[in-house]
Amino acid sequence: MPEDTLLSVRELKTLENATGHAFVSVLLLRRLTAKTASNGNAFFSLEFGDRTGAFSCTLFSDHPQFDLLKSLPEGTALHVAGKIDYYQGRLSPKLGKIAELSNEELNAPGMLDHLVEAAPEDGAAMWTEFNTFIESIQHPELKATTRLAFDEIGEAFRTAPAAVQMHHAYRHGLLEHTLHMARAAKVLLPLYPEVHADLALTGILLHDTGKTIEYEGSLAAKRSRKGILQGHVVLGYQLARKSGLKAKLAPALLERLEHIILSHQGEPEWGAAVYAATPEAVFVSMVDNLDAKMGMVQRALRQTAESEEFSERLPGLNSSLLVTKPDA
Amino acid sequence: MPEDTLLSVRELKTLENATGHAFVSVLLLRRLTAKTASNGNAFFSLEFGDRTGAFSCTLFSDHPQFDLLKSLPEGTALHVAGKIDYYQGRLSPKLGKIAELSNEELNAPGMLDHLVEAAPEDGAAMWTEFNTFIESIQHPELKATTRLAFDEIGEAFRTAPAAVQMHHAYRHGLLEHTLHMARAAKVLLPLYPEVHADLALTGILLHDTGKTIEYEGSLAAKRSRKGILQGHVVLGYQLARKSGLKAKLAPALLERLEHIILSHQGEPEWGAAVYAATPEAVFVSMVDNLDAKMGMVQRALRQTAESEEFSERLPGLNSSLLVTKPDA
Amino acid sequence: MPEDTLLSVRELKTLENATGHAFVSVLLLRRLTAKTASNGNAFFSLEFGDRTGAFSCTLFSDHPQFDLLKSLPEGTALHVAGKIDYYQGRLSPKLGKIAELSNEELNAPGMLDHLVEAAPEDGAAMWTEFNTFIESIQHPELKATTRLAFDEIGEAFRTAPAAVQMHHAYRHGLLEHTLHMARAAKVLLPLYPEVHADLALTGILLHDTGKTIEYEGSLAAKRSRKGILQGHVVLGYQLARKSGLKAKLAPALLERLEHIILSHQGEPEWGAAVYAATPEAVFVSMVDNLDAKMGMVQRALRQTAESEEFSERLPGLNSSLLVTKPDA
Amino acid sequence: MPEDTLLSVRELKTLENATGHAFVSVLLLRRLTAKTASNGNAFFSLEFGDRTGAFSCTLFSDHPQFDLLKSLPEGTALHVAGKIDYYQGRLSPKLGKIAELSNEELNAPGMLDHLVEAAPEDGAAMWTEFNTFIESIQHPELKATTRLAFDEIGEAFRTAPAAVQMHHAYRHGLLEHTLHMARAAKVLLPLYPEVHADLALTGILLHDTGKTIEYEGSLAAKRSRKGILQGHVVLGYQLARKSGLKAKLAPALLERLEHIILSHQGEPEWGAAVYAATPEAVFVSMVDNLDAKMGMVQRALRQTAESEEFSERLPGLNSSLLVTKPDA
Amino acid sequence: MPEDTLLSVRELKTLENATGHAFVSVLLLRRLTAKTASNGNAFFSLEFGDRTGAFSCTLFSDHPQFDLLKSLPEGTALHVAGKIDYYQGRLSPKLGKIAELSNEELNAPGMLDHLVEAAPEDGAAMWTEFNTFIESIQHPELKATTRLAFDEIGEAFRTAPAAVQMHHAYRHGLLEHTLHMARAAKVLLPLYPEVHADLALTGILLHDTGKTIEYEGSLAAKRSRKGILQGHVVLGYQLARKSGLKAKLAPALLERLEHIILSHQGEPEWGAAVYAATPEAVFVSMVDNLDAKMGMVQRALRQTAESEEFSERLPGLNSSLLVTKPDA
Amino acid sequence: MPEDTLLSVRELKTLENATGHAFVSVLLLRRLTAKTASNGNAFFSLEFGDRTGAFSCTLFSDHPQFDLLKSLPEGTALHVAGKIDYYQGRLSPKLGKIAELSNEELNAPGMLDHLVEAAPEDGAAMWTEFNTFIESIQHPELKATTRLAFDEIGEAFRTAPAAVQMHHAYRHGLLEHTLHMARAAKVLLPLYPEVHADLALTGILLHDTGKTIEYEGSLAAKRSRKGILQGHVVLGYQLARKSGLKAKLAPALLERLEHIILSHQGEPEWGAAVYAATPEAVFVSMVDNLDAKMGMVQRALRQTAESEEFSERLPGLNSSLLVTKPDA
Repeated sequence: MPEDTLLSVRELKTLENATGHAFVSVLLLRRLTAKTASNGNAFFSLEFGDRTGAFSCTLFSDHPQFDLLKSLPEGTALHVAGKIDYYQGRLSPKLGKIAELSNEELNAPGMLDHLVEAAPEDGAAMWTEFNTFIESIQHPELKATTRLAFDEIGEAFRTAPAAVQMHHAYRHGLLEHTLHMARAAKVLLPLYPEVHADLALTGILLHDTGKTIEYEGSLAAKRSRKGILQGHVVLGYQLARKSGLKAKLAPALLERLEHIILSHQGEPEWGAAVYAATPEAVFVSMVDNLDAKMGMVQRALRQTAESEEFSERLPGLNSSLLVTKPDA
Repeated sequence: MPEDTLLSVRELKTLENATGHAFVSVLLLRRLTAKTASNGNAFFSLEFGDRTGAFSCTLFSDHPQFDLLKSLPEGTALHVAGKIDYYQGRLSPKLGKIAELSNEELNAPGMLDHLVEAAPEDGAAMWTEFNTFIESIQHPELKATTRLAFDEIGEAFRTAPAAVQMHHAYRHGLLEHTLHMARAAKVLLPLYPEVHADLALTGILLHDTGKTIEYEGSLAAKRSRKGILQGHVVLGYQLARKSGLKAKLAPALLERLEHIILSHQGEPEWGAAVYAATPEAVFVSMVDNLDAKMGMVQRALRQTAESEEFSERLPGLNSSLLVTKPDA
Repeated sequence: MPEDTLLSVRELKTLENATGHAFVSVLLLRRLTAKTASNGNAFFSLEFGDRTGAFSCTLFSDHPQFDLLKSLPEGTALHVAGKIDYYQGRLSPKLGKIAELSNEELNAPGMLDHLVEAAPEDGAAMWTEFNTFIESIQHPELKATTRLAFDEIGEAFRTAPAAVQMHHAYRHGLLEHTLHMARAAKVLLPLYPEVHADLALTGILLHDTGKTIEYEGSLAAKRSRKGILQGHVVLGYQLARKSGLKAKLAPALLERLEHIILSHQGEPEWGAAVYAATPEAVFVSMVDNLDAKMGMVQRALRQTAESEEFSERLPGLNSSLLVTKPDA
Repeated sequence: MPEDTLLSVRELKTLENATGHAFVSVLLLRRLTAKTASNGNAFFSLEFGDRTGAFSCTLFSDHPQFDLLKSLPEGTALHVAGKIDYYQGRLSPKLGKIAELSNEELNAPGMLDHLVEAAPEDGAAMWTEFNTFIESIQHPELKATTRLAFDEIGEAFRTAPAAVQMHHAYRHGLLEHTLHMARAAKVLLPLYPEVHADLALTGILLHDTGKTIEYEGSLAAKRSRKGILQGHVVLGYQLARKSGLKAKLAPALLERLEHIILSHQGEPEWGAAVYAATPEAVFVSMVDNLDAKMGMVQRALRQTAESEEFSERLPGLNSSLLVTKPDA
Repeated sequence: MPEDTLLSVRELKTLENATGHAFVSVLLLRRLTAKTASNGNAFFSLEFGDRTGAFSCTLFSDHPQFDLLKSLPEGTALHVAGKIDYYQGRLSPKLGKIAELSNEELNAPGMLDHLVEAAPEDGAAMWTEFNTFIESIQHPELKATTRLAFDEIGEAFRTAPAAVQMHHAYRHGLLEHTLHMARAAKVLLPLYPEVHADLALTGILLHDTGKTIEYEGSLAAKRSRKGILQGHVVLGYQLARKSGLKAKLAPALLERLEHIILSHQGEPEWGAAVYAATPEAVFVSMVDNLDAKMGMVQRALRQTAESEEFSERLPGLNSSLLVTKPDA
Repeated sequence: MPEDTLLSVRELKTLENATGHAFVSVLLLRRLTAKTASNGNAFFSLEFGDRTGAFSCTLFSDHPQFDLLKSLPEGTALHVAGKIDYYQGRLSPKLGKIAELSNEELNAPGMLDHLVEAAPEDGAAMWTEFNTFIESIQHPELKATTRLAFDEIGEAFRTAPAAVQMHHAYRHGLLEHTLHMARAAKVLLPLYPEVHADLALTGILLHDTGKTIEYEGSLAAKRSRKGILQGHVVLGYQLARKSGLKAKLAPALLERLEHIILSHQGEPEWGAAVYAATPEAVFVSMVDNLDAKMGMVQRALRQTAESEEFSERLPGLNSSLLVTKPDA
């Protein structure tokens, strides 16, 4: 399949009256749900997508690719051949041959960018800068706690989104948001000397690490069982606690670090276990709020068409955003 | 001091125009706050109380009992001699001699009942029955988890209140509320066979154990530092987790047990970390709600004067309660 | 029409590209709305359904079945012949011959189960057990009040749903929910001796009887005019009042019985006229809440596919439900 | 006791350092609560007041007036002699001789005005005008329904307050508020011809009649048992229903009249049983809201001292009110 | 194009299986959004509509009408020829020739009524009556302020809707709602003499004038940039302030007039800048609420089919409305 | 009066049983309300205070200082001589000679600090730094707008509190809070390049200027008439608009500057006229929130006694604050 003829989901949807038209695409298997038809036959309800959109279709047990699909986890990247069809007025192609991408194909330049939205900054560069923030922690046990936590999480943190919806909801979004908060804290901390700088920075670096467990699937994020049963606040608290104990962090400091994570969501109805009750916890929850909102602004500026004056309505801001430049 | 001449706080307050009248009482030191007067002298702001009420007074650093008081933790039971006085219209006696109760005095029949409100059922009998519920758990690791948790808490659980305000807010209140929930679960579980009985019972027995850490002071409860910084939901989750790991409880069961505790408050704005998402968690949070409300009813029935038709307004019910019998 | 070739709505929808395909089905006429086309001709907008789903179609005044349909109330069960067609991408068959089911056909085994979702327990057995609860009331006038109320309601109570949405929203759902509450009360009442058992049981049996008026249509429930103008709380209160007066129930008891019904929804914004202010009213509203939530759990366990780990999101629980067994 | 030496409560409170000073006043017995002292003796906690304020005091069982007071209902008007005293800094006189006012004294000009705040318009004149509104109803059964309801209520309606707190909370307040709504309806109905005028007017006249049962005590209003257990909305609905049935009002009209009463509070959390769903019900609830708010304005204008620019904060308006004239 | 063969949007949608059928219609261009296809070509996403409904379609840059459309503002009335087609099951015609209506065509009798919903009363007659209300203001500077404000707004006020959704959301709706409030105020003001009549009337006439800036497009209303950035409350306040300064209105009166506008929305979460704190402001906000709700009632009565008993659910009333006559 | 014998309010209150004790103090006249006694005599209800507290007393028209007081505005600093007395149990001295402080006395070192709480940073130094921020604005018309606005406000901005309650509620608090926001913006703006730096900084400097009108009285802040009728958001918007027009700021920029002020409160129920809808407005409202919360933290750290572990409950944080150092 020559790469230049591959169609994106948006292109597949733009074809008009194309029933029967053959196509090849590289797509992510976003959801696979096993169902049973009224005649007793098994079938799959499938959702495929790429950065530009998604569609659903079904595949019955007598399809030659049925067994292959059965073995694939959600989030697998695939070569997909098929013919355009519609069901109840929506694009719902008849699937043909399907093949998993090789690791080389998946890691080829631009491929991940094709499959999923990602942070605008380069992931590797962000991770390098992130590590300088870990290194900048002066307090030995706080630094060790942070290092141990990221050793335990491993890769997941670098690529996870910061949310399924709302702010920084894309590949590398969690790393990007946490890094932006660290940058903000670095310049703000000299202005608020009552805040213990190392403790606040450690709190920032660790505050959302529970999301690496709350969301699963590096390419197709959804809430995991642990995410539904415990939530990222408790999961992140548990991770920080385990790391702090291993690093022999003084109990009084560990307690305050745990408190930052337990309270960073601000209000109980947004998920905070308790209200922020230390200078560091108040500081971290406010910097979190600032960067989350600014992240929504940045994404809307990237995604709104140039000819538009306002973005779509952004639920997190309760408004659409004026996207034209002030000097225009 | 002959016992029969001891005056309760209610009696001290009923004395009219009694300035200078000498008295002796047995009182609890509820609060001790160190302050500095505008002349630089140290003084204590003190709150004394018993089951019938409380009053505040001050004591300066030149008072012969100043050093004794400095060494006493809040919640200490004391013989207090003094003379009636008023400050800004409120009872504020001049303190005389003060002496800590001996252990024998404190454990004498009726003494605790004199000092603090307690559950109407006998504490020891409740604890015995409570242990039969632990024994009734069939699943070995769930039983071991429960046993280990109560071994770790020790005495505190038997006497703690279930709340500072609201429901079961008195000595033995936590034991009473948990026991009542276990009794209710025992008879309800056969009606809801989709609920895993051992898991639900374990969840009930452990659901509020974090309150033994959230409140401190066996006789004068207030929220502890850990209570403010973490809350009883997270504290109880942590205790259950530690006990479950020690008891080698299967991870899938431990996760569900933790979930019961994390979700039992029902709504995030009431303190739940997540919404209940298993049959057992829904069941436990509903039984908790049922017995908490009925506990408010029971206490209002005990405390409202016989000649009254309605209790005072009960904040937890958003109403006063009709306390006369239906057949009257 | 041989029974074995009848197609359910789900099967009609599973047919792909079947335009023009002839079918016969047994369906419920769920909604019939008379409209006027822009050319002045009358037509019906119709909704047909069975337990597996529903579809809409239109039928113009020149159709041979137009006059028959005009005479049929919503909720009629029909033999429907037609040909598959689609309108704006949705199943919208061209109707052919239509015939009302005979009473024998309607009462044939399995027919109601085919047409509408029903409680998993047998309706007749539940009704028998329900009557033993009425008989168990010791207080003669409370028993007579209950009996008179159910005599007045008649059949409707046995088959009505407990809600249009939310909990126990299916045939026999109201009977099932009320029966489950009575079972729970029977075992809980010995634990809460301050609750007048006969009064609480009467309150439970009668608390939702207003729903037999609030919803109309035994097979296709929607809110009736009285339901919209008064609500089931006031309607049930009125029914209990009338029955109590006829049974010469002592005014003090009738007032408390009325109060149970007026307050059972818990909060004014959920429909309670007043907050619960008697032990019996608090008890009934809590048992109602417990069984309503457990009913949502039970239905989700029945309806979620075996291969799924979580149910769909349940609005009444604010969460999806983990449906796999704890021991799995 | 010569009338000119009687002291009002405000005057009693203005006396400084007057301990032991003898006085005579005419006061209302607002609250009488029987209590038991710690020595087992019975005593009364009493609240006396007049239009200018209130004070509390106690009276023990050995006082010569104890038996007299035991027999008096709350709301009795009394000659009270006593000596000024203070308890905990507040006026708390030692009571001397007490005597009930004769009917002639109670009905003497100005006496009720001395005892309680009243509407600024004359009660008898308002009642006369009110009856012309009843007479203006054209529809015979609606007029009869209204007449029968007021026959049943009797005197209570003429003098009751419209609320314990909030709007029109004074003697004749209910009559005044209802009359003002009738006046407003009379001029507004020609502008809203889709509203059935007789039905809306009947709804207005009856909408708050439940308050004659919800509040008890003609001179010292508090919520009655029926008020707490049912609320004025249901009580008024029941009264209208009974009157409508007796007047043989057509069921369709009675249902709409009941609906006006059930929905007039606007929102369920303010006490409405259902949302307004007829033109008449929407109209009545809006006119109710208009006059309730304007009643708060009128009372604040009457009560705020002339030298003040703003009234005290009015909870019903969430603001203080600018009371100076626009032209000033 | 002969007028009698023009099809409305509702008629276009009623045609079944009409692909390829040619039609001519007179339609409003409601929305025009410029987009770029994945192949880099520009295209327009268009929404056309009339009083009976709307549809969307696309038009690519190689279409002969592309340049014409590029030059047309949203809200232009057009002759549209085309052929019926469907995209994803919805009506999405292929466009043919398009031509702007001449001014004579646009002003022909019935044309505006064809294009957009309008108030039932005649616009010109309402404007005449509206001016008599301006003339009725006695206070010279208040009258001048009002006159200057309407001179500045010009035509926009006569045709603007009172809202995009909710109440009076149609052509002339703003004039109609303001006029109805003036009529209501005229008859109510004698009943509330504490309200400064001229000030209240001026406040009513001006209260919503900011909506002429908040909404833009006389025929296809949407929120303007100023509407999103400032809101109609501040815009109306600014207009009143400017007019009042020009009219040399006394500062104390201007301040009160501004306050009426700033507070008329009632609650901050509905858009009020402050709570009403003068008799006039309370009065205006209550009359506004009354007429807004009655306007929803009136529109539902006009729009619900005669054979229906209840309207659709009206979000502003939280209910559907019983639309049959009480006497029916 | 020798300075060293002056007593603060806290010291006056600490005196026990001091009736009749003569004292001299320097106090602020916080409130003066003219009242009429029941005997028709005029009197003043007065509130005096200093940094350490406040008390109330009354002064009748026959007092030699009555006429002097009549002429004094609230907020005047006074020498007050008197004798300790109590009324209803509270300190309520009998006033003796009263004399206004001379300007020299008022401006003497430490005097303002004695009378009112002030920001910990020096007012003059803050004002100097504040001006460097104005100078740092590059855009000439934005700089001119800012300069003109502060020229118009004059002195008031330098000393006003940022709030009556909540955050920065003390002398210089408004200057301090605005300056802290400017410092934060200076370091954050390079991290958020999509924010127009000059526009955001101008928005910060002007965002709360309406408070100089909303609060009146440099030493005894209360909400002014304009504050109650318009609110600081609209007042600040008006000031910025006036200054921007005078500075010939481009309309597009002025509109965005006005929008920052109208939206900075975040949510309509906190006073925002609209939601933030530009990058600059989102940024300013988030920095405002950050510094407001940190200001509460800083004040609690200053005010809580060293021996305490937690501050009092801070309403703005919904919690008490742990005030001990993390390393302690």
